[in-house]
Amino acid sequence: MRVVKVRSEGLSHLSYFVHSGPDAFVVDPRRDIDVYLKLAEENDAEIKHIFETHRNEDYVIGSLELKNRVPSARIGHSDAIDFEYGDDSLADGEKIEMGSLEITCINTPGHTPDSMCYAVADTSVSDDPIVVFTGDTLFVNEVGRTDLVDPDRTGEFAEVLYDSIHEKVLPLGDHVIIHPAHGAGSVCGGDIGDREFSTIGYERKHNKWLSMGRDEFVQNKLDQELILSPYFKHCEKLNTIGPPLLSEREPVRVLDVEIFEEMRHKPEHVVIDTRNPQAYLEGCIPGSTSAYLGALGMIAGWVFHPDQVFLFVLDSPTEMEEARSYLIRVGYDKVLGYLARGIAGWREAGNDTSSMRNYEIRELKELMDKDGLQIVDVRQPHEYHSGIIEDSKMIPLTSLEEKMGSLDKKKETVTICPSGIRSTTAASMLEMNGFEEVGVPVEGLHAWRKAGLPLKKE
Amino acid sequence: MRVVKVRSEGLSHLSYFVHSGPDAFVVDPRRDIDVYLKLAEENDAEIKHIFETHRNEDYVIGSLELKNRVPSARIGHSDAIDFEYGDDSLADGEKIEMGSLEITCINTPGHTPDSMCYAVADTSVSDDPIVVFTGDTLFVNEVGRTDLVDPDRTGEFAEVLYDSIHEKVLPLGDHVIIHPAHGAGSVCGGDIGDREFSTIGYERKHNKWLSMGRDEFVQNKLDQELILSPYFKHCEKLNTIGPPLLSEREPVRVLDVEIFEEMRHKPEHVVIDTRNPQAYLEGCIPGSTSAYLGALGMIAGWVFHPDQVFLFVLDSPTEMEEARSYLIRVGYDKVLGYLARGIAGWREAGNDTSSMRNYEIRELKELMDKDGLQIVDVRQPHEYHSGIIEDSKMIPLTSLEEKMGSLDKKKETVTICPSGIRSTTAASMLEMNGFEEVGVPVEGLHAWRKAGLPLKKE
Amino acid sequence: MRVVKVRSEGLSHLSYFVHSGPDAFVVDPRRDIDVYLKLAEENDAEIKHIFETHRNEDYVIGSLELKNRVPSARIGHSDAIDFEYGDDSLADGEKIEMGSLEITCINTPGHTPDSMCYAVADTSVSDDPIVVFTGDTLFVNEVGRTDLVDPDRTGEFAEVLYDSIHEKVLPLGDHVIIHPAHGAGSVCGGDIGDREFSTIGYERKHNKWLSMGRDEFVQNKLDQELILSPYFKHCEKLNTIGPPLLSEREPVRVLDVEIFEEMRHKPEHVVIDTRNPQAYLEGCIPGSTSAYLGALGMIAGWVFHPDQVFLFVLDSPTEMEEARSYLIRVGYDKVLGYLARGIAGWREAGNDTSSMRNYEIRELKELMDKDGLQIVDVRQPHEYHSGIIEDSKMIPLTSLEEKMGSLDKKKETVTICPSGIRSTTAASMLEMNGFEEVGVPVEGLHAWRKAGLPLKKE
Amino acid sequence: MRVVKVRSEGLSHLSYFVHSGPDAFVVDPRRDIDVYLKLAEENDAEIKHIFETHRNEDYVIGSLELKNRVPSARIGHSDAIDFEYGDDSLADGEKIEMGSLEITCINTPGHTPDSMCYAVADTSVSDDPIVVFTGDTLFVNEVGRTDLVDPDRTGEFAEVLYDSIHEKVLPLGDHVIIHPAHGAGSVCGGDIGDREFSTIGYERKHNKWLSMGRDEFVQNKLDQELILSPYFKHCEKLNTIGPPLLSEREPVRVLDVEIFEEMRHKPEHVVIDTRNPQAYLEGCIPGSTSAYLGALGMIAGWVFHPDQVFLFVLDSPTEMEEARSYLIRVGYDKVLGYLARGIAGWREAGNDTSSMRNYEIRELKELMDKDGLQIVDVRQPHEYHSGIIEDSKMIPLTSLEEKMGSLDKKKETVTICPSGIRSTTAASMLEMNGFEEVGVPVEGLHAWRKAGLPLKKE
Repeated sequence: MRVVKVRSEGLSHLSYFVHSGPDAFVVDPRRDIDVYLKLAEENDAEIKHIFETHRNEDYVIGSLELKNRVPSARIGHSDAIDFEYGDDSLADGEKIEMGSLEITCINTPGHTPDSMCYAVADTSVSDDPIVVFTGDTLFVNEVGRTDLVDPDRTGEFAEVLYDSIHEKVLPLGDHVIIHPAHGAGSVCGGDIGDREFSTIGYERKHNKWLSMGRDEFVQNKLDQELILSPYFKHCEKLNTIGPPLLSEREPVRVLDVEIFEEMRHKPEHVVIDTRNPQAYLEGCIPGSTSAYLGALGMIAGWVFHPDQVFLFVLDSPTEMEEARSYLIRVGYDKVLGYLARGIAGWREAGNDTSSMRNYEIRELKELMDKDGLQIVDVRQPHEYHSGIIEDSKMIPLTSLEEKMGSLDKKKETVTICPSGIRSTTAASMLEMNGFEEVGVPVEGLHAWRKAGLPLKKE
Repeated sequence: MRVVKVRSEGLSHLSYFVHSGPDAFVVDPRRDIDVYLKLAEENDAEIKHIFETHRNEDYVIGSLELKNRVPSARIGHSDAIDFEYGDDSLADGEKIEMGSLEITCINTPGHTPDSMCYAVADTSVSDDPIVVFTGDTLFVNEVGRTDLVDPDRTGEFAEVLYDSIHEKVLPLGDHVIIHPAHGAGSVCGGDIGDREFSTIGYERKHNKWLSMGRDEFVQNKLDQELILSPYFKHCEKLNTIGPPLLSEREPVRVLDVEIFEEMRHKPEHVVIDTRNPQAYLEGCIPGSTSAYLGALGMIAGWVFHPDQVFLFVLDSPTEMEEARSYLIRVGYDKVLGYLARGIAGWREAGNDTSSMRNYEIRELKELMDKDGLQIVDVRQPHEYHSGIIEDSKMIPLTSLEEKMGSLDKKKETVTICPSGIRSTTAASMLEMNGFEEVGVPVEGLHAWRKAGLPLKKE
Repeated sequence: MRVVKVRSEGLSHLSYFVHSGPDAFVVDPRRDIDVYLKLAEENDAEIKHIFETHRNEDYVIGSLELKNRVPSARIGHSDAIDFEYGDDSLADGEKIEMGSLEITCINTPGHTPDSMCYAVADTSVSDDPIVVFTGDTLFVNEVGRTDLVDPDRTGEFAEVLYDSIHEKVLPLGDHVIIHPAHGAGSVCGGDIGDREFSTIGYERKHNKWLSMGRDEFVQNKLDQELILSPYFKHCEKLNTIGPPLLSEREPVRVLDVEIFEEMRHKPEHVVIDTRNPQAYLEGCIPGSTSAYLGALGMIAGWVFHPDQVFLFVLDSPTEMEEARSYLIRVGYDKVLGYLARGIAGWREAGNDTSSMRNYEIRELKELMDKDGLQIVDVRQPHEYHSGIIEDSKMIPLTSLEEKMGSLDKKKETVTICPSGIRSTTAASMLEMNGFEEVGVPVEGLHAWRKAGLPLKKE
Repeated sequence: MRVVKVRSEGLSHLSYFVHSGPDAFVVDPRRDIDVYLKLAEENDAEIKHIFETHRNEDYVIGSLELKNRVPSARIGHSDAIDFEYGDDSLADGEKIEMGSLEITCINTPGHTPDSMCYAVADTSVSDDPIVVFTGDTLFVNEVGRTDLVDPDRTGEFAEVLYDSIHEKVLPLGDHVIIHPAHGAGSVCGGDIGDREFSTIGYERKHNKWLSMGRDEFVQNKLDQELILSPYFKHCEKLNTIGPPLLSEREPVRVLDVEIFEEMRHKPEHVVIDTRNPQAYLEGCIPGSTSAYLGALGMIAGWVFHPDQVFLFVLDSPTEMEEARSYLIRVGYDKVLGYLARGIAGWREAGNDTSSMRNYEIRELKELMDKDGLQIVDVRQPHEYHSGIIEDSKMIPLTSLEEKMGSLDKKKETVTICPSGIRSTTAASMLEMNGFEEVGVPVEGLHAWRKAGLPLKKE
């Protein structure tokens, strides 16, 4: 028996391929499912089951995609909500045999009503479970959010989650290894640990949430401030009805400058520049949005809309597949193509690029002291605790579109974040919206802190 | 300026990617076109033109496929026939500029009426051409066939070809490098050399066809016995109207034993076993046809029909993509999927396999001496010149389906070819058609010859 | 914090790369150490420590090799024996800090006196350990052997092991994940489970050895019949003094037939044929030993000597590196080269090959019934429990050289094992030693059992 | 018959792998010879001969290296000079048979006295040659240099070269394809074309050197101004005695900050930073020399010495092998290792970096107008024809070390070249030598020209 963890970076999403001899199952597949087919091949195994831990809200699930390639695989999920696709509506306590493995479905509502943990026993040794796939119920150092289904019922769901964990998960035994659906950096947990493994026993002892009493647990849940991305609702919907198959998409086009120029002005069409922020600031196609490749999955969910059609400016065409993967994982399927030969081709065809100022950090400090710049800090709320620059405005990137009206378009505006990635996205959005002078210190708050410049803490 | 030759093994088809700085063109692309996109990427170039040397009959052209990915690329072909797709109908003598390259279109009818050679000059040095893409007009050691358009007009087309070569190709100059559309082993030429390069001067001096007079040339063309594959007409039709896009196909499925068993019995559904002939003979799924992976492209055109739906038994799932490539290149697009875990999975599910005898070569000779076996030699006509086994029947694999009625189903039947590949395909076809005892000496005529056993020469 | 398990197939050896941020350590590296350097690169980490769980006897450790590439890495092992290399002699209870990790050295004698487990705590969460590297002390479903240091003191070491496990390992807590040095198939444990993970709690409850009392444990250890390979002493010696660096080896040569022919007859020179058993039986170079690539690491230790110089006959030159890796892992460093173009080149140069009979399983049964063949079963003793063929002789491959004198060289001799691999090695050894007629049923005991033929159980 | 061209970028060196069936030869192998072994593997061929076109001066030949791996391969070179290694001293007109190929050795002195062209005929077709390997005698658009053996005898050697070309190469026939030893960008020809193929006929007609009369040819040779790199003598020497084997080198070390810091100050030890120029200027280890990876082979020969020991600062450890390849090709074998985790690791350990100014091109122009900066143009002499910046000093990078005394160390100094690569190397050298203020416009003369700023032409 072997468990292979499949990380989807950007999203910090974890899915699992589990096999025992020739039989395999997958937990929470992502939409680009070749990775699971390849694991099946390498291990000479067949995928018999696809288990979903719940109706996910932060990514689009690949169950149907996988079943489209392996028609005999059965999709299973909780019977607690009405999915419009799938083969098995699983009840709490239901058991599934697969070779020598026995998989027990444990309904653990709290994060969502349909949350399901799957405990697996190796019956060639014992009926005792040895691993449990905990979905968004229990993470390393954290527990699931309870504010997503209905923010107004956060406390109520927190109570339910508390009970699920204490009455259904912990009793499996200290010796059981846990495999959650997210790792550090996910928006699905406040502060998931970056240790990549744990056991029920270790979490029972050392996860702060598990040593709280019921009331304390609920109160802490109510106090937790977490991001609510607009694309969550889109994912939820797709994950209820079953997402469309990727094979129905158009292939990605290589667009020459002329066609690119024509297409980029169509309504719904958006140009995304995935080069590093520094390169973007030095010269970009006017009207393009910066979204650094490594952060595209996250940024897309925050600032784009699933109905938009995407055109790309890439560092190299080899990045197109990666970029497209990040988008489809969050349900943004409409990629038209990319600019042939990138920004070099654009320039060689005689087109202009626009640029924005990249402030050195000490230079920025000096300018701030005399000029009274408009500083916009685009981090997420929970990041502000580590300190903010005096007089800066706190507008998380996720809210920028909605709140940019509160800023003065005529003032020199500087966006800031830890590493220059989100701030460059923000800067590109402000410029597109008519801000007259926008710039970014690409080295970000990391450099500010390193240089010993002042930060105000609450 | 750089010319990259792209070999499509199976078919001995040669296509070309040519670039000079950021501009590129492709000659005669195959349908699996990622190779050209990758070359464009690696060389930081854009594909501006796609040139077809003629309406091909032995493979399906990838021009539309490539244009679907690079919409700005212009498809060009001769104006001598009415193509139902494409951008540029090229006239004899027409010139196309691309950066410092000048491409001259030279209509060279003979193989087909619309055959076009493309001579390329590097104008930064001279207007003199340096290379010419000769399509199926002139090969290394060979010239194009003239029997494909209409077998009854072979001589007439031979005259035209003679004139095209002598009046239009050779005058380009001895110093010009030739790049033909096929290499050794292609069905499009009788005896194409296995040297991978040549010049007009070298061919003028040493290609036997070019030193013949007009009448001798025509007579030799009339005497040339070449294979006519049934799929040629299918290719011709697709290449006139423009082949369907591959993105419209269904993805390949991984079929478990149960679904495979159900699907393989549907009408139009065919099981292809691509494992090596020896493995096939030892144990195969009853009713499956042997078509060794490395020869699949060739065998498919000979024994399958483009409307059939294919199910595969593979050595390893990693071979599926290769197998599918071979099929689509000849216009066989309907692949349903492959058996999960191959023949091992089949057996583990408790299903039977059938086997055929694999004769050792001396054992075969001994049996022949006493038993009077029915020996069927399935090579192509032009191969018989190298010697045949006494009393064997000559039925090329391409004609087997049609002519097997002339054989005695009740006799022990042995199929033979040089290396066991085609003979195993033939054996599988005979068994499916009710022959009672079929076997193959897998070591083939190679071993027969090596063992010094007798061969009759005409 | 992340633990990456590195499997060395053949040996079922498990080593580990562990990193937390930019700091990494490696546990029990193998000699081909590029895998650890690459993991460090990919994770942007530096290898600070190399921990050895004990002086290994079944493979040669790569600590010096790794330190040769990363001079700042410190090699640590137990202070219980006198290693002639290394940086840190670790005492029981010693603690090492690395970033936020705390590694506790726990001396757990039994398998060897110097056996050391390394428990790791993630101090950013707690001082409680979360994983323990258990070396050959505790495996999944098994515990370490106690017969290797001195077979006569097996019981004494078993007592010590019992105490180490119960007093030092189990007290770490049920919640602790274990990472042993071997997986299923290793010669270092009788019956290691093929589940690739476990916890102390799970083993405490379900590992049969851990629920035994002290006396029962010792008695069972005394009753356990395990293989003792001759190369163990060689590994032990190298692992005490520190193995030679691989960079001092000569590069592998491509040998043409002439040079190969000359070299293979030198004393100490041995020809190994790594092709599959069936291909070997059909035709091999006279005097070569069959050792199928996938089993070479295991077979080498059983039938070759570390001072021999190896010449290879490969399926493809691409296999040379893999073959060499298997050898160096067990301390067989002298590879001269491989035959250019393999068996095909050999034959084309006009040389003879020899062949052996490959019996079909039913054919074998029939022959046995009439002829009274000499059947030699070359499995390991613990495999005999699953049933033996009546009248067959039990000579494990490891003892074949020593015991072949008890067989009749003039009789038709058939070697057998489950899958044809070891039996073909045995057959090649017998033939080299003058047995007049040797053959192998390549399908092996698997096929015998499947065919429902009789097996005698004790 | 197939000819595979192997490009060694950096040096624009071309070597060739040629095979016909199972027989292969290599022309002018580089020292990192795995590429040839792999080609032999892929084509199932054996390397029988290694031909050297002459004793090279711009790279170290890999013949011995290749023979060390393929002991049966015979090294052949001209009998005109006394090589201290090799198997065959080839005379003018000597013929070598290999399968159906016939290789004719043609002594063509001029570039060097021992220059040898190898003409190859495919005797299965004709005794007429079809390709010729022309070494440094005849290139695309160019002919070999005649100033390297002895600058004072340039004219004399030019006469000899003229005769060799006209009397021995051109007579092979217009139809013969040429394969020279260098492509565009090589220091071995003034202006080699970037077309990657040619024929004797095409060169005869369109290579300007070949249409000159003897006297004009000689005069033009005398007028040609080409670079003379100091490492040429080193290569010549190694290529006479036979270069040392790479297997004798120490492996590359991963150096932690502490060891790196200690080692970099040793005499003969040099730190090379291969990151892009921009990254280098922003922050580098004080005392390190910038040599961008892609240009390392070229820069090494210009500014380093073969006896130096190299320590690397890399963008990523994955670049180490590439960097080492570039060095060994020019005979710089002593690589100690690279800094673990690169510049990030350096900074995290609390060490300082130094930086230099990266001028924007317009900013530079403005400064020049007022400040009277010291501008140093480090291009090669033949590049100056395309225009120079007024008042800049012409000091080719190859002469910088020798001539930097003519510059004013106290003045703000700006180095310039087309793309910022060589100028950053130059800047790093100046700073190490005590220049007080050094900077580089990384966008280089390309940007200067594009911005329409003034350039003076002679």
